[in-house]
Amino acid sequence: MSTTARPAVQPVLGSPDALPRVDGDRLWRALMTLAQIGATPKGGVCRLALTALDGEARRLVMGWLREAGATIEIDAIGNIFATRAGRRDVPAIGIGSHIDTQPTGGRFDGNYGVLAGLELLRTLDTHQITTEHPITVAIWTNEEGSRFTPVMMGSGVYAGEFTLEHCLVQEDLEGIRVADALEDIDAAGTAVLPQLSAYFEPHIEQGPILEREGRTIGIVTGALGQRWFDARIIGQDAHAGPTPIEARRDALLAAARLVVQVRELALRFPDEARATVGQLLVSPNSRNVVPGQVRLSIDLRSATSQTLDAMVAALHRATSDIEATDGVSICLDEVVSFPPCRFDDALVASIAQATAQLGYPSRDIVSGAGHDAVHLASVCPSAMIFVPCENGISHNEIENAQPADLEAGANVLLHAVLAIDGRPSAALEHLPDPAQ
Amino acid sequence: MSTTARPAVQPVLGSPDALPRVDGDRLWRALMTLAQIGATPKGGVCRLALTALDGEARRLVMGWLREAGATIEIDAIGNIFATRAGRRDVPAIGIGSHIDTQPTGGRFDGNYGVLAGLELLRTLDTHQITTEHPITVAIWTNEEGSRFTPVMMGSGVYAGEFTLEHCLVQEDLEGIRVADALEDIDAAGTAVLPQLSAYFEPHIEQGPILEREGRTIGIVTGALGQRWFDARIIGQDAHAGPTPIEARRDALLAAARLVVQVRELALRFPDEARATVGQLLVSPNSRNVVPGQVRLSIDLRSATSQTLDAMVAALHRATSDIEATDGVSICLDEVVSFPPCRFDDALVASIAQATAQLGYPSRDIVSGAGHDAVHLASVCPSAMIFVPCENGISHNEIENAQPADLEAGANVLLHAVLAIDGRPSAALEHLPDPAQ
Repeated sequence: MSTTARPAVQPVLGSPDALPRVDGDRLWRALMTLAQIGATPKGGVCRLALTALDGEARRLVMGWLREAGATIEIDAIGNIFATRAGRRDVPAIGIGSHIDTQPTGGRFDGNYGVLAGLELLRTLDTHQITTEHPITVAIWTNEEGSRFTPVMMGSGVYAGEFTLEHCLVQEDLEGIRVADALEDIDAAGTAVLPQLSAYFEPHIEQGPILEREGRTIGIVTGALGQRWFDARIIGQDAHAGPTPIEARRDALLAAARLVVQVRELALRFPDEARATVGQLLVSPNSRNVVPGQVRLSIDLRSATSQTLDAMVAALHRATSDIEATDGVSICLDEVVSFPPCRFDDALVASIAQATAQLGYPSRDIVSGAGHDAVHLASVCPSAMIFVPCENGISHNEIENAQPADLEAGANVLLHAVLAIDGRPSAALEHLPDPAQ
Repeated sequence: MSTTARPAVQPVLGSPDALPRVDGDRLWRALMTLAQIGATPKGGVCRLALTALDGEARRLVMGWLREAGATIEIDAIGNIFATRAGRRDVPAIGIGSHIDTQPTGGRFDGNYGVLAGLELLRTLDTHQITTEHPITVAIWTNEEGSRFTPVMMGSGVYAGEFTLEHCLVQEDLEGIRVADALEDIDAAGTAVLPQLSAYFEPHIEQGPILEREGRTIGIVTGALGQRWFDARIIGQDAHAGPTPIEARRDALLAAARLVVQVRELALRFPDEARATVGQLLVSPNSRNVVPGQVRLSIDLRSATSQTLDAMVAALHRATSDIEATDGVSICLDEVVSFPPCRFDDALVASIAQATAQLGYPSRDIVSGAGHDAVHLASVCPSAMIFVPCENGISHNEIENAQPADLEAGANVLLHAVLAIDGRPSAALEHLPDPAQ
């Protein structure tokens, strides 16, 4: 996605050193303390949504938020809003993410967004700043989707993408329903969470771009649209010895051609396109049997709907060609479809401006992954701030990020929030009013 | 494999109608009766080696063989020799195969060879023929290898390819050792099985060639050599959304290229070459994670060692190329190596001659699969007779064969055995003495 036109960065009026700053050490300590709940021997975290560990983490973070002067509200899907009052009785500016993790997850994915929000509240206290808007730190239930589908469940319910009733009856692999899991850890409340006037989500990039280019801040302009397919390829099982090559209907050969073609889809549309086969299952999966059936997943992403549509059309042509050449049949079933998301111009501008003012190297970036902010974007102005993660690795116990980068992202968050609040530090006071 | 030069078929001196014939109905009834032990709802058979069902089948067939006048000997791995005495005290002519099946196996694979041998004994009785050589029907233990590895275990022990001690301690997935499984069904004996002067194995083709060409008999000139590899491809797990295509080290993409290249290996060497990837496992096998690791099996077969060697060299070049283009590392581990097997010229000639005399359409064929006869070929003159199976399908509950074809194969067996015995029917009396 190319850089969008946005308000020019205002000249720095005050000295950058005079701007209020978060306490990076305090933020890091909070991250490391939270990471102890569900810590794995390899240095990661396993804290699946709505498990006892998740309950323990929720209580810890809610305690910290209360200590920072916030009032807690919880809704029926377990989303937590911790709100620090503002001067005016208007919808709050939200900051949030999630604290559930992948089974072999890391210490930063999600947790960083929530604890950057906590650090912001603490910093406001330290500097005795009262904002115009209330400030809400949001913790969304089951973002990862590792235990329960759909992913990004809590923010999806909040945004009206999923119904509460649908989500409450979803089951994990052991047949435990979301409703029962919520009850087991006493995580559900009765609040109807209020509207937000804006939503910011800081997050590790989960990709290699910022690190590779030496940028501290990713100004996230939007998120790739996603279309996911299940493909089922039907050929014919045959004995690998006696069956001549030309007499075969080899489902795995067809699948291999499809995997290569899916990669080609992304190369043909380099406009932030991604195309991935992540899952592939062979049947009967026996050494000396020509496979008669393969199931595989196809994940297509792009920043524009036009490119996504073109990729899907090309996918259908590729499967038809493979059916013709390999004597197999291929069924494509679309299982997920999210349109591309464009974040709010004013919020993105506030992030860009804060970044420039604080002097951090940055670039515009499009989120390849889904985040709670993508759901929020459908109900209020939303944007994200990315910071680098080591080698771009996430959803992995070795996920890592640098304290200085996490601190920088929290500083950008602070100043972007203050700008949107209409009470910027001296240097930000000329930011256009986002309400206009 | 091209047709090898062999003794010209002798002119038919007597009327083909005067030749002794097997009783096709009786053979079919025996096959269908044996197929009831372990019968599956889909019409197949599940009778894994050394299970209680295998024990029941062994007792049934041994009973039939005793009724046909044979004396039973059993060795320590459970191989059964049922011998009908000949006029001379010389090593027997053997006929055999196996009666264990795949988990979703058919009614004919293996069983046909054993019961064609039984039918031969019965036919000799019916015609009151006393052969010069003793005739032995052999039932080899655990040919399929579905429950215990190695495959073709019993014939391998007999031929000295595997030690008895090694095989007895092999375990199934439940940890049951071969020795205990043998004891459980009282299948082991103490005999040291004698040498054979020759070994014939009738079998369904398990491939589509005979059916496609309308041939009743496959004169099996040998078996493809096999070289099996395990490949392990190491890339890097990455989040499918944020990771740009060019930054990936996608192990599944590399695996897909390898699957396509393995197919090319067989096309480049059309001399009866086969190349198959039957097994492929992806890690972490998650929809939205670029796979960091793939393990797959590669099964290369050819009728000549030169072609096999060339295929292996080309495989190594292909993996090096893929390592270079895809940023992955690929380890190849050779797990099986059988040289090509060439069956005994005199036995093959006896089969060709019997086929011609009986007037069955036939062709020379190379076995793509391993069979007990491949092990036997290392210790005595051996050959095989193939008959068509429906759509070339085997190792499948829908495996099927026509009664007339099975009868034809048994008739060819009968006359080939009589020819080798040196007591051919009138029409075969000019067959060259195979001992010369």
